[in-house]
Amino acid sequence: MNPLDKSKEERATYAAAGVDIDAAERLVGRIKELVRSAGRPEVLAGVGPFAGLFRLGQYREPVLVASADGVGTKLKVAALLGRYDTVGVDLVNHCVNDILTAGAEPLFFLDYLASSDLGEEEKVAVVRGLVSACRAAGCALIGGETADMPDLYAPGDFDLVGFIVGIVERDRIIDGSGIEEGDVLLGLPSSGLHTNGYSLVRQVFGIGKGGAQTGGRPADPVCQGRILDRYYPGLGVTLGEVLLIPHRCYFQELKPLLEHIKGMAHITGGGIPGNVARILPEGPSTGSGRGLAARFDRGSWRVPPIFELIQKTGRISDDEMYRVFNMGLGMVLACSEEGASAVRRALPEAKIVGRVVRQEGAEGVILR
Amino acid sequence: MNPLDKSKEERATYAAAGVDIDAAERLVGRIKELVRSAGRPEVLAGVGPFAGLFRLGQYREPVLVASADGVGTKLKVAALLGRYDTVGVDLVNHCVNDILTAGAEPLFFLDYLASSDLGEEEKVAVVRGLVSACRAAGCALIGGETADMPDLYAPGDFDLVGFIVGIVERDRIIDGSGIEEGDVLLGLPSSGLHTNGYSLVRQVFGIGKGGAQTGGRPADPVCQGRILDRYYPGLGVTLGEVLLIPHRCYFQELKPLLEHIKGMAHITGGGIPGNVARILPEGPSTGSGRGLAARFDRGSWRVPPIFELIQKTGRISDDEMYRVFNMGLGMVLACSEEGASAVRRALPEAKIVGRVVRQEGAEGVILR
Repeated sequence: MNPLDKSKEERATYAAAGVDIDAAERLVGRIKELVRSAGRPEVLAGVGPFAGLFRLGQYREPVLVASADGVGTKLKVAALLGRYDTVGVDLVNHCVNDILTAGAEPLFFLDYLASSDLGEEEKVAVVRGLVSACRAAGCALIGGETADMPDLYAPGDFDLVGFIVGIVERDRIIDGSGIEEGDVLLGLPSSGLHTNGYSLVRQVFGIGKGGAQTGGRPADPVCQGRILDRYYPGLGVTLGEVLLIPHRCYFQELKPLLEHIKGMAHITGGGIPGNVARILPEGPSTGSGRGLAARFDRGSWRVPPIFELIQKTGRISDDEMYRVFNMGLGMVLACSEEGASAVRRALPEAKIVGRVVRQEGAEGVILR
Repeated sequence: MNPLDKSKEERATYAAAGVDIDAAERLVGRIKELVRSAGRPEVLAGVGPFAGLFRLGQYREPVLVASADGVGTKLKVAALLGRYDTVGVDLVNHCVNDILTAGAEPLFFLDYLASSDLGEEEKVAVVRGLVSACRAAGCALIGGETADMPDLYAPGDFDLVGFIVGIVERDRIIDGSGIEEGDVLLGLPSSGLHTNGYSLVRQVFGIGKGGAQTGGRPADPVCQGRILDRYYPGLGVTLGEVLLIPHRCYFQELKPLLEHIKGMAHITGGGIPGNVARILPEGPSTGSGRGLAARFDRGSWRVPPIFELIQKTGRISDDEMYRVFNMGLGMVLACSEEGASAVRRALPEAKIVGRVVRQEGAEGVILR
């Protein structure tokens, strides 16, 4: 009955199996402290025993808008650089942008952080990032799960997943259904790669590849660190610094402008073609008719130098680049002529990057 | 510009980096099909472009109840046995139980499925499990993320995370605040290990340990499969079969009985002591006063044979066993005498397993 008795070493314990419940409880205490600063008056129980409780305010016809996302293998770059505070920002901002495309305001967020051996300080740093981004978006962090998964994650590796719930009045939902010929496509600059394309970038530069967990030779973190520490004059910073720039959140800027927006595409995996196609109310022409398409003028915005560096280094085709990366646009808005003017008055960085056209052909998105 | 041109092999592509966008899109189509059967009339957009939309019905003072969870390393047992349909059931049921402890009815669920190389059929099987459990709980599956994470997950490994949102009227929240001396503790049988203690079980039996990803010698799946295929007369099934029994969901049985329940503890990581302590309205006595404690009579319920097998094989102390595993109780309810009678009339399998007592001492939960 006494877990400290002499034969302890011979006995199987959860701690020896890689799961330390005491450490987990200590961590929960520290996280609770942090999370308190990312609250909202509607939160009833903070990090409650089994669930987070959030009292809903007064709405006419409330629609909940929810999304689940990860950070992808940007995590591997963060781990190699020993930076754990930015990926939480990436995750929250990605999620906030996803529900923003429906016109929703974020209400609350939950996270899942899994690893085999991530230290307490590293876990707290991740949560600190989550908290700061939640605060900036006015979103409550009401819960989460920190999972110790020995044997599932390689030492140093971790995964980070986020879930967000927001709300929108039913008659204010943005769904692209009103998009029509002649509408303006506005592009908002991305801050960098956001959270997409990291597996390709890692392949191009040889970062986080060939680790023990891939069955190949063990990775050499020192060598990989050197690749990330290389300064590129064209970037003005090191490769690691530019790759870790957090995913930009568009909520606060766009919140007062939602009435002017007919459709909104968050440029994530699939790039401009994959994501903008999803908000058009009709598919492209399939037969004799003429369908709606989004026609982008590639000369109308500046592709940041990091994308040129990736493309040149990896000898990647233009098509592949535009399908994998955001290429400098983090969010694309479809607006009427007047709506676009209103948005641009308030947000001069919003650039006209294309038009909605009616045309024959099977392409929903044309980049020329 | 043509991605099929001759020099393709020399160029870096997302597919070569382990991320196949075409395959991902095909999978999304199959998942959409499946998910349709786990809908609710309130779902507005199903698997929408960037988020799931759920119209809230009429409530007086609605409180949203949310939880995020994983399946833990039960996933490794599933992967070794090549069974991918049960872990989705585990995940949904775990989440439904978590929010049920607050008295909430599940509304919708989102999942996150990450791997480096999990096949399309395996991914679809996971989603099929999610769908069937969501249907059983009357919960809509409104979205999710399937992430390809080469280099982060070892071949064959995957992680599965769930996120649930439910709802409860504010004056119907179950929070344990009314628990008092003399209240009855009812235990509901678990179906097996549910989703806790798998890292310890795997250590005890040598399953899914020492894989390439732990830095040790590569695991031998054939040998490990043999361990799981061993038939134990005391269990009546193989070890693998008993370890994969899905986490039981208590929602449908308890839904009509919620008014009789003062507090509810989902017995997950931390076991009976760790979880029941969380629902008591006062902590244990710290000084001269007498605090509330939950006193369990260990002879009052049957500990299933699998736990005895684990304890004996691993030479694990009683304390450790009760702190890591549910030991046969999946849910513990605190009820008044009358409440307990009402619950037992409707649910004869609910056993009286203890009492709430007032006593000196620092223990919130006493197992004797």
